[in-house]
Amino acid sequence: MYGLMGRMLAAPGEREALLAIMLEGHAPMPGCRSYVIARDPKSEDGIWITEVWDSKQAHTDSLQLPHVQATIAKAKPIIAGFAEFIETEPLGGSGL
Amino acid sequence: MYGLMGRMLAAPGEREALLAIMLEGHAPMPGCRSYVIARDPKSEDGIWITEVWDSKQAHTDSLQLPHVQATIAKAKPIIAGFAEFIETEPLGGSGL
Repeated sequence: MYGLMGRMLAAPGEREALLAIMLEGHAPMPGCRSYVIARDPKSEDGIWITEVWDSKQAHTDSLQLPHVQATIAKAKPIIAGFAEFIETEPLGGSGL
Repeated sequence: MYGLMGRMLAAPGEREALLAIMLEGHAPMPGCRSYVIARDPKSEDGIWITEVWDSKQAHTDSLQLPHVQATIAKAKPIIAGFAEFIETEPLGGSGL
């Protein structure tokens, strides 16, 4: 499995709008075992995304899915940037 | 919901043994929506745990479960310490 934990930064004052776009746009993706969208309580603009995929390739492929591309297009104007980006090798647990 | 991402450090040379204890000891816990055990590919001794709970209280309560206490007792001698500890507010996604 392939894991990702990333923190995205919303444009000032736009975190709730960005969260709404991401939550609305979320739909099952092939090879995706877990995808969690979370507010970062330590900052005004941070959003944590934690993901578990069957493989790194499954994650790369997902970026071409029409609903993912539509969400990226909608979200882009209110994304200020990206902070932490952490890759992991998930082995097991619950919710996968 | 209440989220946690933490990095645990195994004693030198003990990461695979610690992972085995954690994977074997893992069982469903009340109020736990996701619990992922992962190797940290950027270090020799790191293990990432990412968790989503119904509430912070559900996480606190889980530490008293007999199977959790048994796993902690088994793991303790080969845990060198804890590094990152990040709390989040999960809102939605897949695998919850």
